[in-house]
Amino acid sequence: MLAKIKIVLVETSHSGNIGSTARAMKTMGLSQLCLVNPLQAIDEQAISLSANASDILQQAEIQPNLACAVADCQLVVGTSARSRHIQNNILDPRQNAQLAIQQAMQGHNVAIVFGRERVGLTNAELLQCHYHLAIPANPEYSSLNLAMAVQLISYELRMAWLAQTQNEHEDRPLTHLPTAQQLEHFLQQTEALYQQLGFIQNQGVMQKLRRFYYRAGIEQNELNILQGMLTAVKRHIR
Amino acid sequence: MLAKIKIVLVETSHSGNIGSTARAMKTMGLSQLCLVNPLQAIDEQAISLSANASDILQQAEIQPNLACAVADCQLVVGTSARSRHIQNNILDPRQNAQLAIQQAMQGHNVAIVFGRERVGLTNAELLQCHYHLAIPANPEYSSLNLAMAVQLISYELRMAWLAQTQNEHEDRPLTHLPTAQQLEHFLQQTEALYQQLGFIQNQGVMQKLRRFYYRAGIEQNELNILQGMLTAVKRHIR
Repeated sequence: MLAKIKIVLVETSHSGNIGSTARAMKTMGLSQLCLVNPLQAIDEQAISLSANASDILQQAEIQPNLACAVADCQLVVGTSARSRHIQNNILDPRQNAQLAIQQAMQGHNVAIVFGRERVGLTNAELLQCHYHLAIPANPEYSSLNLAMAVQLISYELRMAWLAQTQNEHEDRPLTHLPTAQQLEHFLQQTEALYQQLGFIQNQGVMQKLRRFYYRAGIEQNELNILQGMLTAVKRHIR
Repeated sequence: MLAKIKIVLVETSHSGNIGSTARAMKTMGLSQLCLVNPLQAIDEQAISLSANASDILQQAEIQPNLACAVADCQLVVGTSARSRHIQNNILDPRQNAQLAIQQAMQGHNVAIVFGRERVGLTNAELLQCHYHLAIPANPEYSSLNLAMAVQLISYELRMAWLAQTQNEHEDRPLTHLPTAQQLEHFLQQTEALYQQLGFIQNQGVMQKLRRFYYRAGIEQNELNILQGMLTAVKRHIR
């Protein structure tokens, strides 16, 4: 499903950013990179910063303009740091991911478009995007690096995709919780022992302990340990 | 609220990563950076890559080890790329953010701990963390750059904080949680006592107990009771 989603970089100035973008994409399971008129070629700097994601660079598509890059896409989302005068439909990265995964599930091609490092996308380019995507950054300092933005957005795509596939299978590891009876047995033994040791002299202490163990979500094997500790103390006392 | 959350970098090798981390933090509104025994000082490379976030570098705290860095924290979360044999309580960045913001709202100090670039945190360091945090990356290529990981996790913290401020008018009663130091003291005393009683004979038991107490959200007054119980047993043994 993530294979239906393409990351489009428009007129990137620094090849290092292309490399870091490939790495960021691959960590999240994305593979389709498209470069629109890149100002630097894929060079050593790009390959070095891509770490072991140079396969993504090798397969990257190169296009002369945005229209060509998104021609085969049913959904086109453009990232925008600023709130523009063109009031388009604005998504945050989570909303974008939900929408993109939904579309990809239906077999559609999706493009997420990132602009130039300093000036972003032009108004004409933003007009070609069906939605705008804004990262809710610190308003006093919103300068995310290009590859960082790709990382965040790819992460949300992966999270949405994982949520989708989990709903399909829904098997989580089971945790074994003790029964109420087992927990009660432990609590009563605790009370008896610490009364004997002179530590518990009123109701208040046991009430607080009960409140803690009820809330703590203790598992079966953890309760077994605590039970073993009680027994160890008892044996020593006899 | 984000000011209660500290990013802790342990033995970072490259000062550039420290700079990029500061930038990533600031874009998401985080400000507290703590460096544990950094292998390179904050140099020109760090300042250059921090872009305009050098204020965070200037205010960074430097500590000799992890215990000192988290001593004043009520919640300590350690990032871990691998699924370890120590099956601790594992969070994803979204769950981590919810928990951290919840704790910060109650006035608690939170530390999110990042390990060395290549080898992460040691097992001993992971044992000092109440929860582990794993980014659900591509299992075939999970090599996130350090600053990228900080960016993702900080982004989720900001998203959780924004969601919180949106439904802010509910106020909940404050709970007082013990600091990491207080909980550690209790765990070490427990270990010593039950070794003496012959119940604890290997690492596994303490690991399970730690896992339980870290997850249980024990409150200050509840820990006081457990501490009192330990003392009662000790007195009887003497």
